Amino acid sequence: MDKINLGSTIPAYPMPVSIVGTIVNGKANFMAVAWFTMVSYKPPRIAIALGKGHFTNPGIKENKTFSISLPSEDMVEITDFCGIVTGKKTDKSEIFDVFYGELETAPLIKECPLSMECKLVDTVVSGLNEIFIGEIVGTYTEERFLTDGKLDVGKMKPFLLSQPDTAYWGLGEPIAKAWSIGKKFKERLK
Amino acid sequence: MDKINLGSTIPAYPMPVSIVGTIVNGKANFMAVAWFTMVSYKPPRIAIALGKGHFTNPGIKENKTFSISLPSEDMVEITDFCGIVTGKKTDKSEIFDVFYGELETAPLIKECPLSMECKLVDTVVSGLNEIFIGEIVGTYTEERFLTDGKLDVGKMKPFLLSQPDTAYWGLGEPIAKAWSIGKKFKERLK
Repeated sequence: MDKINLGSTIPAYPMPVSIVGTIVNGKANFMAVAWFTMVSYKPPRIAIALGKGHFTNPGIKENKTFSISLPSEDMVEITDFCGIVTGKKTDKSEIFDVFYGELETAPLIKECPLSMECKLVDTVVSGLNEIFIGEIVGTYTEERFLTDGKLDVGKMKPFLLSQPDTAYWGLGEPIAKAWSIGKKFKERLK
Repeated sequence: MDKINLGSTIPAYPMPVSIVGTIVNGKANFMAVAWFTMVSYKPPRIAIALGKGHFTNPGIKENKTFSISLPSEDMVEITDFCGIVTGKKTDKSEIFDVFYGELETAPLIKECPLSMECKLVDTVVSGLNEIFIGEIVGTYTEERFLTDGKLDVGKMKPFLLSQPDTAYWGLGEPIAKAWSIGKKFKERLK
């Protein structure tokens, strides 16, 4: 089990893929983003990390809102398109069926099983990136993605990106119950 | 396609699962963390969002270092254990085979296919959480997880957590090439 040190580099791991929606110059724009995470439980807040030069950033700063939608596997082509084509050159305002929730400047995507509208609460600069922290004010889905009233990831069919090898991955099968399977290890430790 | 608004809530999506390593009170401690994301490409930086009350946080603040390791599917029990048992009550310093890289206070896990050692560069408070931004100074793996010299997610077999339904998921199959499949959509748009 000899370890190799690859040095100071971008690691490989599966990152869920999202589409961030903003209004830029009066029009909806969409960008594929895999660098995001929940950062607060109460109130629910989510952070996205974007390179400073993106077309999206000024829209977030101006309107202090953005949306984050989780596409399903069958949307892999259009999602990747949102990642490789910049809003600076291509109008992406009509590629999705757009709707709005409470916020007037956070365009949500009807085709996505899950869309969140966010109010910007903080901006943090790190290296060449801007981290936008948004408070989730609305969470939109459809009945068909729920099981017993809860969002069901298995029905949503999200997909994931690994970066150095630039591959999209489907989600596999449930393998264990969280906050539960670890009890077996705990028992053995006694 | 009627949308339902679940309100201001924690969304469901698959989050890669990591184990964060720190030195607390002179001993290695490990905590399961799914709230993390890359935030900077150059230099490579990764952010983790932890509830303020965790045993881990003072260790990060004191040493200004932490590690983040990606466990494989066969480590789901011990990883969940690290999530449900606090270092305040249980000494977790000997549950893994620990090694160190450049940093003396970022314990790395031999059993994990990928371990990164990080230097703390920024701390951001958001709600009841602290976001620790770390610069990746070393990235440890083994030859058997590489393909053509690059980390191969398929060989690493990481797993994912979805939160409201508290399930762990395996990774599925590669479904498309990233920064590539979207060109098909672009062609059709012309």
